[in-house]
Amino acid sequence: MKRTALLTLLSISTFTTAVFAQQDSMMLDKIYHESFYQGQAYDNLHYLTKQIGHRIAGSPAADKAVAWSKSLMEKLDFDKVYLQDVKLPYWDRGPKEKAYIVGSKEPLNILALGGSVATPSKGITAEVIEVQLLSDLKKFGDQVRGKIVFVNKPWDESIVETGVAYGLNSSQRSRGPAEAAKLGAVAYLFRSLSSSTTDDYPHTGGTGYVKGIDSIPAMAISATSAIKLSEALKTNPHTKVYLEQHSAWKGMVQTHNVIAEWKGAEFPDKIITIGGHIDSWDVGEGAHDNGTGTMGTLDAIRTLMALGYKPKHTIRLVFYMNEENGVHGASTYGQVAKNKREQIVAAIESDAGGFAPRGFDIKASAERVVWMQQHWKPLFEQKFWVSRFLQGSPGVDSGVWGQHFPNTVMFNFRPDPHRYFDLHHTAKDVFEAVDKRELQSGVAAIASLLYLVDQQIEQL
Amino acid sequence: MKRTALLTLLSISTFTTAVFAQQDSMMLDKIYHESFYQGQAYDNLHYLTKQIGHRIAGSPAADKAVAWSKSLMEKLDFDKVYLQDVKLPYWDRGPKEKAYIVGSKEPLNILALGGSVATPSKGITAEVIEVQLLSDLKKFGDQVRGKIVFVNKPWDESIVETGVAYGLNSSQRSRGPAEAAKLGAVAYLFRSLSSSTTDDYPHTGGTGYVKGIDSIPAMAISATSAIKLSEALKTNPHTKVYLEQHSAWKGMVQTHNVIAEWKGAEFPDKIITIGGHIDSWDVGEGAHDNGTGTMGTLDAIRTLMALGYKPKHTIRLVFYMNEENGVHGASTYGQVAKNKREQIVAAIESDAGGFAPRGFDIKASAERVVWMQQHWKPLFEQKFWVSRFLQGSPGVDSGVWGQHFPNTVMFNFRPDPHRYFDLHHTAKDVFEAVDKRELQSGVAAIASLLYLVDQQIEQL
Repeated sequence: MKRTALLTLLSISTFTTAVFAQQDSMMLDKIYHESFYQGQAYDNLHYLTKQIGHRIAGSPAADKAVAWSKSLMEKLDFDKVYLQDVKLPYWDRGPKEKAYIVGSKEPLNILALGGSVATPSKGITAEVIEVQLLSDLKKFGDQVRGKIVFVNKPWDESIVETGVAYGLNSSQRSRGPAEAAKLGAVAYLFRSLSSSTTDDYPHTGGTGYVKGIDSIPAMAISATSAIKLSEALKTNPHTKVYLEQHSAWKGMVQTHNVIAEWKGAEFPDKIITIGGHIDSWDVGEGAHDNGTGTMGTLDAIRTLMALGYKPKHTIRLVFYMNEENGVHGASTYGQVAKNKREQIVAAIESDAGGFAPRGFDIKASAERVVWMQQHWKPLFEQKFWVSRFLQGSPGVDSGVWGQHFPNTVMFNFRPDPHRYFDLHHTAKDVFEAVDKRELQSGVAAIASLLYLVDQQIEQL
Repeated sequence: MKRTALLTLLSISTFTTAVFAQQDSMMLDKIYHESFYQGQAYDNLHYLTKQIGHRIAGSPAADKAVAWSKSLMEKLDFDKVYLQDVKLPYWDRGPKEKAYIVGSKEPLNILALGGSVATPSKGITAEVIEVQLLSDLKKFGDQVRGKIVFVNKPWDESIVETGVAYGLNSSQRSRGPAEAAKLGAVAYLFRSLSSSTTDDYPHTGGTGYVKGIDSIPAMAISATSAIKLSEALKTNPHTKVYLEQHSAWKGMVQTHNVIAEWKGAEFPDKIITIGGHIDSWDVGEGAHDNGTGTMGTLDAIRTLMALGYKPKHTIRLVFYMNEENGVHGASTYGQVAKNKREQIVAAIESDAGGFAPRGFDIKASAERVVWMQQHWKPLFEQKFWVSRFLQGSPGVDSGVWGQHFPNTVMFNFRPDPHRYFDLHHTAKDVFEAVDKRELQSGVAAIASLLYLVDQQIEQL
C-alpha cells in the first residue's frame, strides 16, 4: 500500500474513532443529566428501606421485596418480567441476643451469625479463651474444651481498599466456629469485621459448620465490646461471659429471583446481565447492602429507556435472592442459563454500596481491559470522576453463576470504599447513610457502562 | 553507540527507575500506615470545630484559632514557628437575620452575605422582582426601583464536578448586589449556591459593591425558601417580603497567618509551601471549609516527621487568614515572599473539603503533568484509590500569592466533590460531617505527594 493511501486510511480511521467517541460523549452527557434530574433510585430506595426494611432470604419481607420489585419493573418498558423459582433454607435470628460479662453484668453487643445454631434457651455461661488469630487456638489444646472462644483480631486500618482488609479477617467468620468446635469450645465469639474501631455495632454475616463436628453457637461482637471484654480478661483471666441467642434453620422455602428482559434489536439471543441481590441481612435496612445495587441497576436501565435508547443485545435485569447466606439465587440463575445454553456476553453487578462511583473491576483478559482503559476511561475520567477500570474479580453473584460462563466479560461496580465496612451488615446500614447525588452519580456511571458494553462489546 | 551498550544503558536506567519506584512505594505504605494508625487530623479537627468553632477573619474566635494553631505547630519538630501580621477589615453579621413573606408571616431562611451592609434597623418591606438570571434584570428597567431583587437560578445538578456548577452561578453572589443597586433595588436576595435542592439551609459567602453605586443589603436564601417565595409570587405578583439584618464592617484589625518551617537539608533556600486557610465563615463550624485543610496539611507534615523523614527542601506550612472574605492573608504572604525574593519551588493547598481523596489539580506545564502521571500516579492509583493528576487551577490562596510566583508548580488537593456544596458556607458544615477514614486517607495522600515533590521536583 502506498504511504499516502495508508495515511489516508489511518486518518479516516482516527477520524471515525473520534466521531464515535464524540457520539459516546454526548450520550454520556444525556445519561448523567437524566440520572441527576429524573433519577428514581433514591426514592425507590426510600420505599425499599422504609416500607419493606431488612429482608433476609426466606422471610416475609424478602417476599414483599420480590413482589414490589416485580411491580417496579412492570412499570417500565421491559419485554418480559418474571420470577424465577429459588428454593433455599430459611434461617431466622429469633428474639434479640443477650450477652454480658458475668458479675459486672456489663453488657456486650453481639449478633448471631447467619447459619448459627442457638444457645440452650437459658444461655451459656463459660470462661473465655481470647486469641488474636484462629491459628493461635491450637496451642491451647485441651484448655479450649468447655470454654467460649473469642477471636479478637483488629481490622487492618492501613488498607484503603477496605474489601481487602475484610478478606484478611473473613476466615474468622467463615471457619472460626468449626475450628473452635473441633477443640471442644461451647460457643464462638469474634470481633466484628468492621473498619470502625470505635463503635458498638456488631456486624453479622454468614458462617458454616463442618460435617461430623458439633455445631456451636457463633456470634460477632462489636469493636468496643471486644475491647471491653479483652480488658476484663486482662484483669481476670477467669472472667465468665453469658451468651444467649435463639437463631435456627426453619426448613426449606420457595423464594424467587426477579428478572426483567429488554429485547435486543440486533443480537436478541446475546444477553447482557445486570443487577444485584435483593435480599439483605436482618438488621438495619439493607440500604447500601444492597438496596443501592438493585435500585441503582434498575434506574440505570430506566435512564436508557427514558432517553429512547434501543439496545442491540438483550439486557436482562436480575435481582438475585440470597446472596447473603447461601447464594441460592445466583446458583439457580446459573443452572437455568446453562441448561438453556444461553449466550451471556457480559455481566454488570452492583453490590459494593451506593457511595461515590469510582469505576469497575473487570473480569476479562488484560488486552480487553487495556482496550477499555483506552476507549472508555477517557469518556468518564475528567468530567465524571470515574477512573477505575482495572482487571479484577466479579461480584459474588456473578462469580457464582459465572462458573458456567467462563468467557463472559464481567464488571463489578466499585463505589468509594472508605465508609462501606463501617456499616456493612449492621443496624447502621440505613437509608440515611446514602447520599442522593452519590447514588445517582453511580446510576449514571452504570448506565453509561451498560450503553458502551451494548454498543461495543463485539469490538473487544 | 553500539546497540548492546545502548540496551545495557537502557536496562540500567529502567532498573534504577524501578528501584526508586519500589522505594517510593514502600515509603507510601509507611505514610498510609502512620496516617491511619497515628493520625491526629481528626482529633485536632474536633478541637478546632467544637472548642473554637466558626472563626471569621477578625473575630476573637479567629484569633483563638491562630494562637491554638501556633501551639500545635510548636509541639512538632519545626525549626521555626511564627505569626505573620495581616491587616484586614472585620465584617460582623450581628444578630440573626429575619425574613418572611408579609401577610402569611411565612418565614424565609436567609443569611447576609459577607461584606453586606445592614437593612435599616426596622427592616425593609418591599415587593419582589424575581428573575432566573442576573442579565434578565435589565429588561425590567425602572420597575426595579424600590423593589427587592430575587435571583432564583437553580443549581445545575447534572455536573459531577460541583465546583464547576458553583462557578456557573457564582456571579449571582459576587456581582448581583451591585447590578441590582444600579437599577434602584432596595435589597438583593438570591438562591443559595447549593447542590442540595431540597434543604432549608442558606449558604453565605462574600460579595462586593461598586464605587459610586449605593450599597444595598445582600442575602442568600435557602433552596426551599426560594421555591416557597417563587410559588407565592406566582400566586400574587405583589407579594411583599420583610427583610432585616444588622451586618456591618467594623474597621481594620490586626490578624495573622500562622507559619511553621521545617528546614531542608539539601536546598534550604528552596521552599515548598503547603497549607490552607484557617478562617471560616461565621456559621457552622468550618469543618470541611477549611478545618480539614489546615488540620490535614499539618498532620501530613507530622506524618513525615514521625517517620524520621529529613526533607531536602524547606517545607513551609502556612495557615492563611481570610480566604473567605478578602484573601488578605495570602496577599500579605505573597508580598512578603516577593520582597524577600524567595524561591518557592512548589505549593500544595487543601481547601476543597475532607471527603475521600481523589487526587490533585496541578498548575504546571502539560509536559510536567504528563511526567507526574507517568511516575507518580501509578504509586497511588490501584492501592490507594487516588488517581486524579490533571492540569488545573491552584487553590484560591496559592492563586493569589502565586501571581508573584508564576513558575511555582502548584497542587490543589481534590477530594470527592459530590457532597461538598451541600454544606459549603452553611450551618451544616460541622465536625460530624467529616469521616475519619476519609480525612486520614487524604492526609496520607497529601503527605505522599509532599514526599514525592520534595524528592523529585528537580527532575520535573
